[in-house]
Amino acid sequence: MLEDEKFALPLHSKTPPEWARRALSDPVALLIDHAFLEKKAANNAMALLTRWPGEWVAGWTETMTSVARDEAAHLAQVIRILNRRGARLARFHKNPYANELRELVRKGVTDEILDRLMITALIEARSCERFGVLAEVTDDEELAKFYRALFASEFGHFKVFLKLAGKIEEKAALDRRWLQLLAAEAEILARQEPGCRMHSGM
Amino acid sequence: MLEDEKFALPLHSKTPPEWARRALSDPVALLIDHAFLEKKAANNAMALLTRWPGEWVAGWTETMTSVARDEAAHLAQVIRILNRRGARLARFHKNPYANELRELVRKGVTDEILDRLMITALIEARSCERFGVLAEVTDDEELAKFYRALFASEFGHFKVFLKLAGKIEEKAALDRRWLQLLAAEAEILARQEPGCRMHSGM
Repeated sequence: MLEDEKFALPLHSKTPPEWARRALSDPVALLIDHAFLEKKAANNAMALLTRWPGEWVAGWTETMTSVARDEAAHLAQVIRILNRRGARLARFHKNPYANELRELVRKGVTDEILDRLMITALIEARSCERFGVLAEVTDDEELAKFYRALFASEFGHFKVFLKLAGKIEEKAALDRRWLQLLAAEAEILARQEPGCRMHSGM
Repeated sequence: MLEDEKFALPLHSKTPPEWARRALSDPVALLIDHAFLEKKAANNAMALLTRWPGEWVAGWTETMTSVARDEAAHLAQVIRILNRRGARLARFHKNPYANELRELVRKGVTDEILDRLMITALIEARSCERFGVLAEVTDDEELAKFYRALFASEFGHFKVFLKLAGKIEEKAALDRRWLQLLAAEAEILARQEPGCRMHSGM
């Protein structure tokens, strides 16, 4: 699936299968981390839903609502899988990768919203890439199926967030900023600690 | 609708039509406040989804997911109505009513989750009651229809949160705490400032 041109991702670094083998050494820990990311993604979509750009953007409300609903549904799926495996969520969760990305958000109404959209798109793109690698590496049928479904869903989210950004800013300026953020994302990811987490380092 | 026995609410105080007439004097301000409450309600359901009670409770994941999706959908509806009226959300929002209620949450795994469920049920019940009064008082057809639909939805939420609480604690202890919280809710609401907000005082 990942090899299909239709699903080409613009990321500046490629996650190797070794990352997935290590992350899958404790699938429950990985699922627990994953659950918090889905919750955060749903909250983020709702936060964007209530913070719209300076001018009217067609599809804003529909996109954010639909993403929030998707992510809440994914969260419920992760929790069902955890329940079936007799596991429960941890009470707290840290996500230094996303926090470092969010520190890149510029000030100013339009710049802020553009950066938030692009960083959300980046996180979706990276999650998408990693679900693809996890789906290929795991020999757990339930997880493989789940990760393949998430790959497709997160790919769709990555595209719609970028599309909304394209309605707010002209192409040249957007491309410039997007390349900066792509480079920053690969650097930030590379310096994460290894571990059984979706956005861990090597 | 409010007079129907099927929709009987246990609240310890009754919102008079004068409250609704005053709140509706600035419908846009009321809708802006309302949007934030829907967002908070969706986030709260997702927070409860990731915090389950000490023992396995059937329907937990399904209830929280379904409430989160409902509230995200309501949030989108409020935003569409605001957009059509040329209005936008404020950037910040305060909700002293809900904050004061949340201060009543006891410590301890089971007590905390029970109180959170019951306080969520209380907020749903009060919102439900107020949507009913607003629907009866407003002469704005769009709002009347919207508030009637929300009345029914929030009534359903109020019931499911209480039902989940009933799966965790035995009836006598639950009833005792529920009566305490009902009394506290009426007191807290009574001391709120008046204004065009869903949980304002008189």
